[in-house]
Amino acid sequence: MEVVSETCCFDGVQGVYRHPSKATGTEMTFGLFMPQEAQHGPVPILWFLSGLTCTHENAMIKAGAQCWAAEAGIALAYPDTSPRGHGVADDESYDLGLGAGFYVDATQAPWAPHFMMESYVIRDLPDLIMSNFQIDEDRQAITGHSMGGHGALTLGMRHPGRFRSLSAFAPICNPMASDWGRKQMTAYLGPDETAWSAHDASALMADRGFDGPILVDTGAADSNMDLLRPETLAQAIAARRQQATWRLQPGYDHSYFFVASFMEEHIAFHAEALWA
Amino acid sequence: MEVVSETCCFDGVQGVYRHPSKATGTEMTFGLFMPQEAQHGPVPILWFLSGLTCTHENAMIKAGAQCWAAEAGIALAYPDTSPRGHGVADDESYDLGLGAGFYVDATQAPWAPHFMMESYVIRDLPDLIMSNFQIDEDRQAITGHSMGGHGALTLGMRHPGRFRSLSAFAPICNPMASDWGRKQMTAYLGPDETAWSAHDASALMADRGFDGPILVDTGAADSNMDLLRPETLAQAIAARRQQATWRLQPGYDHSYFFVASFMEEHIAFHAEALWA
Repeated sequence: MEVVSETCCFDGVQGVYRHPSKATGTEMTFGLFMPQEAQHGPVPILWFLSGLTCTHENAMIKAGAQCWAAEAGIALAYPDTSPRGHGVADDESYDLGLGAGFYVDATQAPWAPHFMMESYVIRDLPDLIMSNFQIDEDRQAITGHSMGGHGALTLGMRHPGRFRSLSAFAPICNPMASDWGRKQMTAYLGPDETAWSAHDASALMADRGFDGPILVDTGAADSNMDLLRPETLAQAIAARRQQATWRLQPGYDHSYFFVASFMEEHIAFHAEALWA
Repeated sequence: MEVVSETCCFDGVQGVYRHPSKATGTEMTFGLFMPQEAQHGPVPILWFLSGLTCTHENAMIKAGAQCWAAEAGIALAYPDTSPRGHGVADDESYDLGLGAGFYVDATQAPWAPHFMMESYVIRDLPDLIMSNFQIDEDRQAITGHSMGGHGALTLGMRHPGRFRSLSAFAPICNPMASDWGRKQMTAYLGPDETAWSAHDASALMADRGFDGPILVDTGAADSNMDLLRPETLAQAIAARRQQATWRLQPGYDHSYFFVASFMEEHIAFHAEALWA
């Protein structure tokens, strides 16, 4: 693991690191904020999965999470959104290929074998971080924005016991029925739609739900509402009687200004679960 | 004035606007955050001047100020750092020309007549903002980062009565004695150094000081310490018995992570003066 940078931030350290990933077969870059408390022992960790076109960097510099994570004594991990580099497949559209891994393990050429973002976020990167930093691996939570909200919700439900709490900002809630999903699932997982439902937050909620609290915020002025389909997730939450808070926030759009505006509440939500 | 974007942010509105400026003779773009309170009447305003290479956008998306300004009911203005566009002179180095206006009115070709950033920030842009938004023009304060910290301190002292409080993050404190200053003052103001001292925070402090509180933070790990020369300003503050808080913050560097880490305290500092 190579240290790209380490910067003092809210009395903790905002680091950027690079490492070879077995899952993706590429070099990967991630951000990690460690609060001051980590100098005295392991701390909980909140994973932040980013949206389309983002790298590890966008949320790290725009979401304003370090302030609240420092206050709560929680680490923050910012993975990249896809593999990158020589030999990695891409598409000319912004929502497939680079910056658009959708947090699944691709089974189809040319995306396999590099686009293994579920394995990367669930196995590879946690292994690396747990080995190198003072993290309490029994206290993990996950959140994300847009495609990263989809990632947080689906990975959280697909890996029971891993995360204590799930939250999402403007998540893609029903990719099987959305142009932010159908194209990508066809590309990464193949045309058989039965394989898709295991990566659709609304289908997963209907099928199994989550053993812990969920918080979902979407801006009522989000111009991507028809792509996000939060109502489908709400319906599944109600049918399952899942512990959840689902909110539409008047006036807010899809931007990081929206994410930053509700970050304090999301981190307080996770802190309650992580410190319980 | 043209609305580039208006985005809901911490219950207020983060706007970006474009307008023709008489001072610079160019189109200028600026950011303005208006807190929710502005719907009910005029609010105070805090000006944030940015550093080398920045546009209006960097601090707006990276400094995390809206959170605290919303809490305090204060507007935030983010001017650009230089004129831009067709016919505007530039230099190949990052610290002269575009993105490097140094908040002075240039007297020398080819920088005059466009590089009139003092007139822009002190006259043109305030006139526009006061005419179009609910701002209490008697309640203004100013801050900035690096070159923008130099701008905040020098404009604050050069225009007594305009601002109630001054603060700065890692400001250039003594440009007459710094490579972040001598080259630019030669270019914009000419080789006669007697013209420079009216734009040097340490010289202005020695000469006249400021009728109000000052807060200056610099990271103790700032790799530009020799260019910033905060000690020269501290010496002048002491000699004048100026009301001031001057801090070196252990571990912090020159980045926006440093700025964001102390933003809450700077806005609280200004709020106390603005609401007095």
